[in-house]
Amino acid sequence: MAQLLVLYNSPADRAAFDRYYRKTHIPLAKKIPGLRSYSISAGSVEALAGSAPHLVACLTFDSMADLRAALASPEGQAAAADLSNFASGGATLLTYSSEEV
Amino acid sequence: MAQLLVLYNSPADRAAFDRYYRKTHIPLAKKIPGLRSYSISAGSVEALAGSAPHLVACLTFDSMADLRAALASPEGQAAAADLSNFASGGATLLTYSSEEV
Repeated sequence: MAQLLVLYNSPADRAAFDRYYRKTHIPLAKKIPGLRSYSISAGSVEALAGSAPHLVACLTFDSMADLRAALASPEGQAAAADLSNFASGGATLLTYSSEEV
Repeated sequence: MAQLLVLYNSPADRAAFDRYYRKTHIPLAKKIPGLRSYSISAGSVEALAGSAPHLVACLTFDSMADLRAALASPEGQAAAADLSNFASGGATLLTYSSEEV
């Protein structure tokens, strides 16, 4: 499997972020081809070490090739372009191949 | 579900980290009660935005109550105490309730 992990830093307006994310960004991101599962943090994220982001999103694909194709697709580009509409605190976007251990 | 997400910063010696993580830390962490799945990044983590950790580990539990009990258990405490044996670059440990969207 391959993961796109997004950690959103705290935005200027958390309530506005949450509304926009649910109503607009999730529907956009769910159109990304090859997306196998999409989970997000519900409620607050707690940091036992380091600093906590406002929201964590984990998007799963079958392979890194599928993930790269997804990011390059029109739907992936639209979802990426949407970040500037709500992620006012910035975000960390990580991609990696994952294995169950 | 509930997630324990660990992002390990780059250690002083990546190869030594990887050996220790596989041989010692994974077997310790797999003893944690209530652990439903445990996946890690295989190979390098790439950052499309922000900075990339050396390794990402995602441990899944049925609920936040199970996750808290797991962290408080002797096995959870042993796994946490083991971090100082290999995570020389430090780590971010995040906990959150997760939902599929």
